[in-house]
Amino acid sequence: MTKAQAATRPATSRNYPKGERRRAQIIKAALTAFGQVGYRHASTVQLAAACGVSRAGLLHHFPTKESLLEAVLEERELQDDQHFFRTDGDPIDGLEYFASMIRLVAHNQANPLVVSLFAVLSSEATTADHPARPYFAARYERARSQMTQAVEDLAARDLLHSHVAPSGLAVSLIALIDGLQVQWLLSPDTIDMPEHLRSMLRNVISVELPG
Amino acid sequence: MTKAQAATRPATSRNYPKGERRRAQIIKAALTAFGQVGYRHASTVQLAAACGVSRAGLLHHFPTKESLLEAVLEERELQDDQHFFRTDGDPIDGLEYFASMIRLVAHNQANPLVVSLFAVLSSEATTADHPARPYFAARYERARSQMTQAVEDLAARDLLHSHVAPSGLAVSLIALIDGLQVQWLLSPDTIDMPEHLRSMLRNVISVELPG
Repeated sequence: MTKAQAATRPATSRNYPKGERRRAQIIKAALTAFGQVGYRHASTVQLAAACGVSRAGLLHHFPTKESLLEAVLEERELQDDQHFFRTDGDPIDGLEYFASMIRLVAHNQANPLVVSLFAVLSSEATTADHPARPYFAARYERARSQMTQAVEDLAARDLLHSHVAPSGLAVSLIALIDGLQVQWLLSPDTIDMPEHLRSMLRNVISVELPG
Repeated sequence: MTKAQAATRPATSRNYPKGERRRAQIIKAALTAFGQVGYRHASTVQLAAACGVSRAGLLHHFPTKESLLEAVLEERELQDDQHFFRTDGDPIDGLEYFASMIRLVAHNQANPLVVSLFAVLSSEATTADHPARPYFAARYERARSQMTQAVEDLAARDLLHSHVAPSGLAVSLIALIDGLQVQWLLSPDTIDMPEHLRSMLRNVISVELPG
């Protein structure tokens, strides 16, 4: 994610004055807690205990389970972006971008509970009245926009196979990454997510990715 | 699906003696009901009413909501196979197969509630103790096996682009189809599922698909 994109994101301040530090601690603990017991089954009492605060303390920062969830989703997205897509506002290098994407998918493959949580939530969020629907719609919009820049960079540098149409490719590659999660979660010994992504990228990119 | 595969499927008899006809009616009505109110929110009372039977009548055929769900999933898979993949036991023609797959995805795009139900269920089923986990694991296994035959047919006829590795391609294409559903459900005006599938197939298949 570029700095410009970060600036348009809902506020999850990286400088933590006063109660903000506690808020950040709760979010971090909640990601683990959601990943362990799932979103649906987690009670605010359980979540408060896992986060090391009282139920009242939790509700002070997050009045509803949905609001805590949204903060957790944003924090994880921010972390992923910072660890795997540090671009410092520079134009996106398509080869670096997709190499980073493979690393992110490999990282996810070490965290089945979090992947499962995300897979369930993004699907549940497709229903009209789900509290996380706007978040996920915007998140995919951001992801498509960013990956489209990466694809356009490759196209401009003539690094796509000659018969590959760049238009719409970002949608399909994001879909591929999402869909692999379900098959991997159901058959972890059969499916290797980063290998499948790398293999599909070889079908469209004409040079080897770095790293 | 070939006849041989159908023979190994759990029994959903196509000849309905006695109570089987009622059972089939319930399954048909339940697919609509699940699609309308979702699986999680559907009560057995609601489902019985939607299916035109008493709660006791429903429970006679399906002692649990999970057992009804499983029957619904199997029925829909059977219907999809019959409408889109009638192979009559013949070897799979890769071009026909993928043309059928595009038609199936276009058909799904007319049924957002059912697609949403499936997307949520397949993700929820990834948790270790979910009643539908064995069903979905086996379903993906069948889907991969069938699509792998289609890919191998194309490879044998030299209809894949020269740089495309057939190994693992089925996993990735199934993942693509699954993943498109979430983006489409969140942004139905932006995402056209069959067009994205067709476009990705053009990246791997060197000739135009029929139909």
